[in-house]
Amino acid sequence: MNSYSTDRVLTLENMNQAVIKLEYAVRGPLVLRAQQIQKELNEKKVTKPFKDVIRANIGDCHAMGQKPITFIRQVLALVTDQSLFDSPAYPNDVKSKARLLLDNCNGSSIGSYTDSAGIEIIRKHVAQYIERRDGIPSNYEDIILSAGASNGIKAVLQLINSVVNGKKPGVMIPIPQYPLYSASVAEYSMVPINYYLDESRNWGLSVSELQRAVSEAREKCNPRILVIINPGNPTGQVLSRENIEEVIKFAYREKLFLFADEVYQDNVYADGCKFHSFKKVLTEMGSPYSKMELASFMSCSKGYMGECGLRGGYAEIINLDPQVKAMLLKLLSAMLCPTVHGQVATDCVVSPPMPGDESYELFEQEKSAVLSSLAERAKLVADKLNSLPGFTCNPVQGAMYAFPRLHLPEKAIEAAKSRGMCPSTFYAFELLEKTGVCIVPGAGFGQVPGTYHFRTTILPQPPLMKELLDRLEKFHLDFLEEYK
Amino acid sequence: MNSYSTDRVLTLENMNQAVIKLEYAVRGPLVLRAQQIQKELNEKKVTKPFKDVIRANIGDCHAMGQKPITFIRQVLALVTDQSLFDSPAYPNDVKSKARLLLDNCNGSSIGSYTDSAGIEIIRKHVAQYIERRDGIPSNYEDIILSAGASNGIKAVLQLINSVVNGKKPGVMIPIPQYPLYSASVAEYSMVPINYYLDESRNWGLSVSELQRAVSEAREKCNPRILVIINPGNPTGQVLSRENIEEVIKFAYREKLFLFADEVYQDNVYADGCKFHSFKKVLTEMGSPYSKMELASFMSCSKGYMGECGLRGGYAEIINLDPQVKAMLLKLLSAMLCPTVHGQVATDCVVSPPMPGDESYELFEQEKSAVLSSLAERAKLVADKLNSLPGFTCNPVQGAMYAFPRLHLPEKAIEAAKSRGMCPSTFYAFELLEKTGVCIVPGAGFGQVPGTYHFRTTILPQPPLMKELLDRLEKFHLDFLEEYK
Repeated sequence: MNSYSTDRVLTLENMNQAVIKLEYAVRGPLVLRAQQIQKELNEKKVTKPFKDVIRANIGDCHAMGQKPITFIRQVLALVTDQSLFDSPAYPNDVKSKARLLLDNCNGSSIGSYTDSAGIEIIRKHVAQYIERRDGIPSNYEDIILSAGASNGIKAVLQLINSVVNGKKPGVMIPIPQYPLYSASVAEYSMVPINYYLDESRNWGLSVSELQRAVSEAREKCNPRILVIINPGNPTGQVLSRENIEEVIKFAYREKLFLFADEVYQDNVYADGCKFHSFKKVLTEMGSPYSKMELASFMSCSKGYMGECGLRGGYAEIINLDPQVKAMLLKLLSAMLCPTVHGQVATDCVVSPPMPGDESYELFEQEKSAVLSSLAERAKLVADKLNSLPGFTCNPVQGAMYAFPRLHLPEKAIEAAKSRGMCPSTFYAFELLEKTGVCIVPGAGFGQVPGTYHFRTTILPQPPLMKELLDRLEKFHLDFLEEYK
Repeated sequence: MNSYSTDRVLTLENMNQAVIKLEYAVRGPLVLRAQQIQKELNEKKVTKPFKDVIRANIGDCHAMGQKPITFIRQVLALVTDQSLFDSPAYPNDVKSKARLLLDNCNGSSIGSYTDSAGIEIIRKHVAQYIERRDGIPSNYEDIILSAGASNGIKAVLQLINSVVNGKKPGVMIPIPQYPLYSASVAEYSMVPINYYLDESRNWGLSVSELQRAVSEAREKCNPRILVIINPGNPTGQVLSRENIEEVIKFAYREKLFLFADEVYQDNVYADGCKFHSFKKVLTEMGSPYSKMELASFMSCSKGYMGECGLRGGYAEIINLDPQVKAMLLKLLSAMLCPTVHGQVATDCVVSPPMPGDESYELFEQEKSAVLSSLAERAKLVADKLNSLPGFTCNPVQGAMYAFPRLHLPEKAIEAAKSRGMCPSTFYAFELLEKTGVCIVPGAGFGQVPGTYHFRTTILPQPPLMKELLDRLEKFHLDFLEEYK
């Protein structure tokens, strides 16, 4: 009989190797170091030329001082503590929404499980929201609610994760990309197929690059899924309708399942830019494109609400084989249901106060204040970076990030390589240590070899955003001087 | 170039076959049929000899009329809508807890992301709770918060999911079992190793049966994990300390990672029964057992709180290789964080009002009212079933379910088989159609071949529970008569 004394049953060698390979830079070593510095500053263990770390590494709106939308929080409070229905402090439309949602919870409690796809009436409200957005019918049975977009994305990935004729499934991922995709693809032992966004065309998708990527990949895997992030993360572009049409035609030719990550659909800032949903474009293109399978993902964590901690989101999945859809619902059922608070928040987003409702004015005022302030910061950041030597930055048309390119001196590149680091990572660590500004190096998202970038959010409130840019400017000029 | 006209990219044939195999009976076809009947009754489309379906299929406390604990809901309301801090309706201890938790949220908002393992102070409160429970130290760095127990269970399963020397990992699962395990093992293409609980010894674990199961399995897979559910689901037993010690020794000999599903630790009803945590027993057994790797899971969905919809829970994972633990944290980080409302609910459970606190008396009163009513129903159900011919039912010592054995007449078994159904499923469908009582057939949990059972919750409030038993009695006697 075997005995293991001090040995462990589970080791790095015999654990899931896919988990070892998985990387998620948005919460990686640089972020851990930033937390450590902040802790040491709080405990006055170190002296630094800055008082606080500025966290521009993650799209976490409330953490950076954005205020929650009153309407959402009031509805959430009411469904949580029903004694508040007697309070005159809550507007009538808040009370009717909360009552309607509770009436649709089992036992009139948010403490009960819901259908695994979410509460039916909320799914219907989502469908109505999509209809208003696109002017095209939406069927609530195509909607699943999820705990943030991530859970929905992972469920649909897992549904498609199948070895066919001995070949693993391939997932086309934009580079640079939001690392949830590479992480989940690694976790599920699927094959990532990287395609590069075209920085010279404002991070647009080029069909010849998509074609190159898929053709090379066919030798080693079975390409099944095309992921598009629009508006882009980390790249901030908003795709034109023409570009979307080209991509849809490409996916049709290559028999790919479309994954449209559209969580930033409310975050469009630049003049002349407009969000076009993949569903709308594909439907309006008519047959055969209008029959293509598409999953579109949305979240309560972004937009103007920024409710990351609530874990609310949904997916609309169209043209799925009905038998496959039944399998998706079965897969979801083993996870019981998404958080009811997240579902309620989703309802508030897709079914907000309408003109005439008591909450309407305040809601609109709060929403437009958040979005116009973000739009100002989007312009401020790109303009500032473009004014500095050694930076080029595409306009931040949408989402919550700038992804500037760093033109580094040869000596800086050598210094990084001698430390075994990607130069973008070296730059990011230096920036953190010297200024307390925490951004994520381009290496965490992927970049064309020999190019260097970083992602900064535009989420610090305006005075802090200006301070971030000041700290960055001083550091950057010193850095160029040091390595010139 | 291929073209698929009306063909779909994703079909039953080329989708993830593991998802097709996955089964989750607690939400299976019987439950869908029950929903349909209720809908038809509501819309007055059918006439049935009953007014409503009684849902005894799922451990969903609030859906069956259990009231939420005031303290938990008040804290949740306060962290959601901070204007309530001015309200005199909220006790001071509720306000201090809510304030403390908000101070530990980034940007003082529950709308921000937390650490992926959960908010540090809540993890510390969990560790203190475990110390009070066991009288043994607990390290908060061994605690991860999760969205219900299910998410934690799936993360640790995935961590261990590794093919070693060409053999897939095996997971020992009790039969009967809570189908989350078989479903997740199927989803991850791991190998289930079924071991039978001993109905004749009140659903205890027999080491010779464990040994049989693991020895047979070694030929086809690499056994890695032993799952124990205590108190038992669906079986309601509370394991004795001696039985737990035997199981730990077995796991040690066989080099198995222990999975202790202890979500029903507060639900112990029977005289002379006591909950012993695997951690406590293993630690008190001393070396070498005290060094064994163990994951213990807890949830806000069960106990006296029954907050299923909030998705709160935690896992304590001890003696893990530090490098492996880092990998677990990395895996969690790609899912961002568990819902903050669920984390707050978890905090209320592990750090409840203490004597002298303003909320203490009401909290204790509500908690003990729920638990003593459950204890009454546990006895009522088992006694009633044992009084009927053709039933034997072990005492419901804990958890929220009875799992009686049905001794069916030969003709009933034949009738079922002629319809291609398991006799337990046949019985369950007949019961549903004729009485509106929705329970889950034993086939959904597994049972010794040739034996037939069902699981009923004890969650309907007392008058409804009595009605359930009345409907069941009449149906059962008619059924025996029809097939005698």
